[in-house]
Amino acid sequence: MRVAVIGLGSMGMGAALNLLRAPGLEVSGVDPREAARVEFAAAGGTAAARAADLPDGIEAVLVLVVNAAQTEAALFGPEGAAPRCAPGSVLIVSATMAPDDARRLAARAADSGLLYLDAPVSGGAAGARAGAMTVMASGSEAALARARPVLDAVATKVWHLGEAPGLGSTVKVVHQLLAGVHIAVAAEAMALGIRAGVEPRTLYEIVTGAAGNSWMFENRVPHVLDADETPRSAVDIFVKDLGLVGDLARSVAFPTPLAAQAHQLFVSARAQGHGGKDDAFVIRAYQALSGIRLPGEE
Amino acid sequence: MRVAVIGLGSMGMGAALNLLRAPGLEVSGVDPREAARVEFAAAGGTAAARAADLPDGIEAVLVLVVNAAQTEAALFGPEGAAPRCAPGSVLIVSATMAPDDARRLAARAADSGLLYLDAPVSGGAAGARAGAMTVMASGSEAALARARPVLDAVATKVWHLGEAPGLGSTVKVVHQLLAGVHIAVAAEAMALGIRAGVEPRTLYEIVTGAAGNSWMFENRVPHVLDADETPRSAVDIFVKDLGLVGDLARSVAFPTPLAAQAHQLFVSARAQGHGGKDDAFVIRAYQALSGIRLPGEE
Repeated sequence: MRVAVIGLGSMGMGAALNLLRAPGLEVSGVDPREAARVEFAAAGGTAAARAADLPDGIEAVLVLVVNAAQTEAALFGPEGAAPRCAPGSVLIVSATMAPDDARRLAARAADSGLLYLDAPVSGGAAGARAGAMTVMASGSEAALARARPVLDAVATKVWHLGEAPGLGSTVKVVHQLLAGVHIAVAAEAMALGIRAGVEPRTLYEIVTGAAGNSWMFENRVPHVLDADETPRSAVDIFVKDLGLVGDLARSVAFPTPLAAQAHQLFVSARAQGHGGKDDAFVIRAYQALSGIRLPGEE
Repeated sequence: MRVAVIGLGSMGMGAALNLLRAPGLEVSGVDPREAARVEFAAAGGTAAARAADLPDGIEAVLVLVVNAAQTEAALFGPEGAAPRCAPGSVLIVSATMAPDDARRLAARAADSGLLYLDAPVSGGAAGARAGAMTVMASGSEAALARARPVLDAVATKVWHLGEAPGLGSTVKVVHQLLAGVHIAVAAEAMALGIRAGVEPRTLYEIVTGAAGNSWMFENRVPHVLDADETPRSAVDIFVKDLGLVGDLARSVAFPTPLAAQAHQLFVSARAQGHGGKDDAFVIRAYQALSGIRLPGEE
């Protein structure tokens, strides 16, 4: 089976390397960044800078780019992958996007004679590297069946939420509401603890062993404790994703006061120039509001 | 060692039953509610309605009541336990309270010749029943040493945060910031998912297996899915505890926008008459804001 992965970032590279290891798949990777292509080629894959340079006869395309606009360009733009796909191929679209965008892209795939799986993922870069992502998929049974060899190689859990494109993206956006608020409130709690004179590493150890823990608290707070701003996932991702939460919520007439507040904190971190830093550094918003010193600062 | 447990509620009863099982302890329980006393006596303990009715020569008192006012009355009020304590006994105070209240009560204990351990707990009713609480303690080494046989029987993890009373309560209040926001945002996400047409039980299963999970999401959302309002911990507890968060934050000049917003949602649930229901039913605030139907409702 000829498979293409578009986007060799923190998630896409992990998925692509697992596809290379899976039997029976011939895997091409697409990324404009040369360093990513070199890494992928060194692992035995075929790398291209543009989707238009993919070989003909691609049977499944896994798209792991940042948003709907990048997805649309990668598939249907002038240098997109769609013309390289064999009839009846499946587009597995894993970027986080508005459910309306997923429906629109699915309709466009149908117009081109291609199957479409609305298939956002969770699990982080570590989950992607381990082939242990969770996939929240919606689409036809035919699309799911065609995508199965790819999904089995990159995920340990595949949810099929229904036939309608958009359901997968809806669940992912709701999931990001939790993820984003959990990262922001982790920062709020750590910053308050620091202000109140609690030793930050002890606070982290206590919380992670108690009922106040979250997956994000446990995963992200160490970046602050270690003063390590290297982005595993960046502040800007949650500026975008909590924006999608607000869009979805308004579209179904539903108020989300906690997500809206958390969004403002990520926007503040971005406003201060930290948009490209690790999302745990939303704590810069609390620092600006209060003047606290973070671990590692004098 | 003669031990008294004051407050045989969801946490206190669990702790008291574990103390009964520990070797070398003679355990009395105090609760004004007859049903609690009957349950404790049936398990082999000595039960009293008022702390004043405890036997003389108590060497350790574990206080698991709701707040600082109840703690003060139970220890130093006209019917309090202090006169029943042997000189050099330890008061182990586990109610969640403001750090200032902990410092004030510690000073009062010192005036009475008693040791004081500021010792809030986490772990929920299940953790208390299992003898698996986490204790966030501060106080003198002498107080900790005297309290050790009691702590070992009720907790799997005892943190000693320092000598100064108030440190334990500070950490607990910061912990409750996380706990309260996590419960409220669990409600926000589930309610948005319901509004957007996602099957609630599927959403729960997906989140608990993904990076959006929290201890509270996993523990509390099933109460909503099962339409079970029986309070394991009530809405009113978080009206109180997020109030303590606001008090602490103001006292150290620190803004807590997420905790403040979550607090308002618990206050709304209480305003609607749900203060005594399980805290997961903070989701009634979102229901009132949006008109959604919860699982089990027509």
